[in-house]
Amino acid sequence: MAQLRIALAQVNSTVGDLDGNAGTVVEWTRRAAGAGAHLVAFPEMMLTGYPVEDLALRASFVEASQTALEHLARRLADEGLGDLPVVVGYLDRRTVGLVRPGQPAGAPLDAAAWLHGGEVLVRSAKHHLPNYGVFDEYRIFVRGDRLPVVRVHGVDVATAICEDLWQDGGPVSAAAAAGAGLLLSINASPYERDKDDTRLDLCARRAREAGCALAYVNLVGGQDELVFDGDSVIVGADGALLARAPQFTEHLLVADLALPAYPVEPQTVAEPLDDLAEVYAALVLGTRDYVRKNGFRSVVLGLSGGIDSALVATIASDAIGPENVHAILLPSRYSSEGSVLDAEDLVKRQGVNARTVPIAPMVEAFEAQLDLHGLAAENLQARIRANVWMGLSNEHGHLVLTGGNKSELATGYSTLYGDSAGGFGPIKDVFKLTVWELARWRNTQTGRSTPFLHPFAEEPIPEAILVKEPSAELRPGQRDVDSLPEYAALDPVLTDYVERDMGRDALIAAGHDAALVDRVIRLVDLAEYKRRQYPPGPKITPKNFGRDRRLPITSRWRER
Amino acid sequence: MAQLRIALAQVNSTVGDLDGNAGTVVEWTRRAAGAGAHLVAFPEMMLTGYPVEDLALRASFVEASQTALEHLARRLADEGLGDLPVVVGYLDRRTVGLVRPGQPAGAPLDAAAWLHGGEVLVRSAKHHLPNYGVFDEYRIFVRGDRLPVVRVHGVDVATAICEDLWQDGGPVSAAAAAGAGLLLSINASPYERDKDDTRLDLCARRAREAGCALAYVNLVGGQDELVFDGDSVIVGADGALLARAPQFTEHLLVADLALPAYPVEPQTVAEPLDDLAEVYAALVLGTRDYVRKNGFRSVVLGLSGGIDSALVATIASDAIGPENVHAILLPSRYSSEGSVLDAEDLVKRQGVNARTVPIAPMVEAFEAQLDLHGLAAENLQARIRANVWMGLSNEHGHLVLTGGNKSELATGYSTLYGDSAGGFGPIKDVFKLTVWELARWRNTQTGRSTPFLHPFAEEPIPEAILVKEPSAELRPGQRDVDSLPEYAALDPVLTDYVERDMGRDALIAAGHDAALVDRVIRLVDLAEYKRRQYPPGPKITPKNFGRDRRLPITSRWRER
Repeated sequence: MAQLRIALAQVNSTVGDLDGNAGTVVEWTRRAAGAGAHLVAFPEMMLTGYPVEDLALRASFVEASQTALEHLARRLADEGLGDLPVVVGYLDRRTVGLVRPGQPAGAPLDAAAWLHGGEVLVRSAKHHLPNYGVFDEYRIFVRGDRLPVVRVHGVDVATAICEDLWQDGGPVSAAAAAGAGLLLSINASPYERDKDDTRLDLCARRAREAGCALAYVNLVGGQDELVFDGDSVIVGADGALLARAPQFTEHLLVADLALPAYPVEPQTVAEPLDDLAEVYAALVLGTRDYVRKNGFRSVVLGLSGGIDSALVATIASDAIGPENVHAILLPSRYSSEGSVLDAEDLVKRQGVNARTVPIAPMVEAFEAQLDLHGLAAENLQARIRANVWMGLSNEHGHLVLTGGNKSELATGYSTLYGDSAGGFGPIKDVFKLTVWELARWRNTQTGRSTPFLHPFAEEPIPEAILVKEPSAELRPGQRDVDSLPEYAALDPVLTDYVERDMGRDALIAAGHDAALVDRVIRLVDLAEYKRRQYPPGPKITPKNFGRDRRLPITSRWRER
Repeated sequence: MAQLRIALAQVNSTVGDLDGNAGTVVEWTRRAAGAGAHLVAFPEMMLTGYPVEDLALRASFVEASQTALEHLARRLADEGLGDLPVVVGYLDRRTVGLVRPGQPAGAPLDAAAWLHGGEVLVRSAKHHLPNYGVFDEYRIFVRGDRLPVVRVHGVDVATAICEDLWQDGGPVSAAAAAGAGLLLSINASPYERDKDDTRLDLCARRAREAGCALAYVNLVGGQDELVFDGDSVIVGADGALLARAPQFTEHLLVADLALPAYPVEPQTVAEPLDDLAEVYAALVLGTRDYVRKNGFRSVVLGLSGGIDSALVATIASDAIGPENVHAILLPSRYSSEGSVLDAEDLVKRQGVNARTVPIAPMVEAFEAQLDLHGLAAENLQARIRANVWMGLSNEHGHLVLTGGNKSELATGYSTLYGDSAGGFGPIKDVFKLTVWELARWRNTQTGRSTPFLHPFAEEPIPEAILVKEPSAELRPGQRDVDSLPEYAALDPVLTDYVERDMGRDALIAAGHDAALVDRVIRLVDLAEYKRRQYPPGPKITPKNFGRDRRLPITSRWRER
């Protein structure tokens, strides 16, 4: 009976870093060879990173990817790894066939290649291009039109790319028709909360439909605004789970397939994380990779004594170590004594670097010349704080982290060029109630050796910060509930309105209070309106009158 | 012989303002009836405005558009205009036929309707969806599948929408096959510089292919980052130009078609503007509509005495009147005496509101606590200036205009949260050499009655500003050429690299100096990299981990 040992390299590639990503392929291919694998597979767009956005439309970037692929094939052979077939995602272009007006410039392909014996043996490309939610692929790719089947160690292996697996018919049916023994799916599938086990269920179903085993390798790591959670799996032809990689970490998942498939021996079958652990891990990984992939080593952030900046400081300590975190305490005339003491307590518990810069003298210098009232006076303080941390960022090269949570951002409860100023917002995707939950959860992990957490000696977040009433402290006695509904009421409506895109009627039908619904919709729509009135700063546009270039935020690739 | 008097309503609609846009349709239909037209046509997505971006994915917005269309048909009849057929663009959805997984939520359609006798008679939708450059339509629309032909006054009129006209085959061939007497094309086609007469050439060619007259109505006005220039045309079956509307202004273009077509009587045939006049008009219209459609009446801007802020102030005066422009002079210890005097001279010439706020005391308050050097110290000054104009914006409700030109933005020669802070950058799409050309051109218009210009009594821009060497004045003796190549050398390379997306080899093959090419590519790529490290402020994302919502910047539509 045919036997195949397959290795899935669940690794972290970086957009634009062709050399670095190729090095990762070589290193993990060597590991797979050491594990006796007959085949090793890497994620979608491994060589270029994902998402590449409009970089795919630059001819010189496509050519750089093609060249890097050829070099990689030769290098693998030169380093004695030429006998092990490698499946790797990369960026290619269509050179034959129909070129339509209006299709993406240069006809780029989200491609996969088989490398063997120093050569690129087979090339194919993604058929189904996702174009919803976070995906934009109709803009930058054309569709592939073939499904390669390659015989490895007596087994016919068909390859499909990411979205191809989600579509009925298409590549899965073709694999079944071709009588493949293994369907190999390479992916860059971003993390979403509450996704349950959609991917595993899908893999099991597709394996049964295709009548063969299915191996699903996913990217891991943060890239720009997205986090990829890994969670690669291998299932048998009956849909049974054979092996599963841990989430949010690089892993070589190796499994022996006997065909027709049955579990030969128990392989790595990682347990999915609990909900809060999963979210916290995503935030740590997203923050760490944003810092690292943008070439920073340290961060600076304002520490107010409130829960949001406390959680951001903790995530930063977990992501890059407290010795690389620089907290700035910026008390004003409206800061309570408690806030300053609580911030100092956190600094001591975590061992982050800290510095206190009272802002009263700067505020007074502005007020001597400008007569500002109400919101204008509140915003001034927030902007002076931002000037301080941006100055320290420019002087010392730290990345600025911002502390806004999703409840605040959605309702516009923040200052443009003030507390919202910075490069990355670790908790921008987390509603306020979850901020509290995550902070409490993080404290419970003290003393345990959770792999993605820093081993603090005591609870990193002071209890006083967990229990205090939220306030921006920009005027005397200010409280969040002066401007917003209680978070316990606000967050469920925000979730349905912002995340589920439910309209007013649907929100009320779902049981939300009508007056609250109207208030929340007003807040969110007004905030969105104002945010868009002040679209962020400088942009350059490819046309002389037009919109922003859409390039990935981090890009290691240069024209030269 | 069949005769038809057609009216094209080249009007300015606002995204999200369903009531206001419907009012525009009624008003211009009344004008068309007064002109004896047998048919009046409005631009693509007239009722919703264009571009609607991800608003198309909100069920409640689609329903609001559908309802507004029915109301509009009844209102036209109620106001005695029911006999005049009206073709109008709006947002609809597909309710029958294939609904595919992965297609835009709710299957929205970029639709057109014929209104007559109080009813919606015929509905159709755009077939070819542009998805390149500034367009994103695969993301938000599904394709139409029918081409209506309606007999009006004895003439068979086929309707097509925008991109449909640009594609070979498709609707144009179908119109020919249907033996239509008139192909009516409704559009929202944005302005580009140097587009020559592509649209007219296309209309002439399609008319000959379809063997019938062709009427092309385009949107006019600024919307978010785009400007629509109008330039609606009517050509005969032989491709000859029968009528042409002026650019950048609302206009009812009326023409008599005798079929087979020949010019019955000379109609309005506007002359296209010269290059600089055209660009300047686009900047004035883009600025005016950004201010107006965002609900502002006045603007605030920093006036340094340099050419960029001088041109921005002048464009603002032309767009909304000098009485609504608030210039802030923010001299520092490094500002030359000449800069202050030149800025004051401009204020006097234009009659804008002005105020001087020396920034030295604020700078000193920061320096007393922070030890900043080099770029960090320079950026601090720029950010203090931004704090001042943002404070005045918050206090008085002015929109902040920024002064960056495209040469600066492309090379990163600006300060994040500093001079780049603001809601709209009137010259962000203009390279520095063109800034000088436009300023000189504007001065030559003094005393002429150019429709889109304010009638200043003297040249609005002092000669001293036109001839001085560019400097940011953030340190003693600073000049732009300390950091950048001379603009005369820089701008041509930027044009080819940024606008034409040429790679290094292509740039050198095109005759650019290799060392200069490498320097410019380094500057642009580094600027883009840094800009993307600091993606702008607060964003909310529809998924709990994901990207920004893509909504239009200005949106008058609210959930309720």
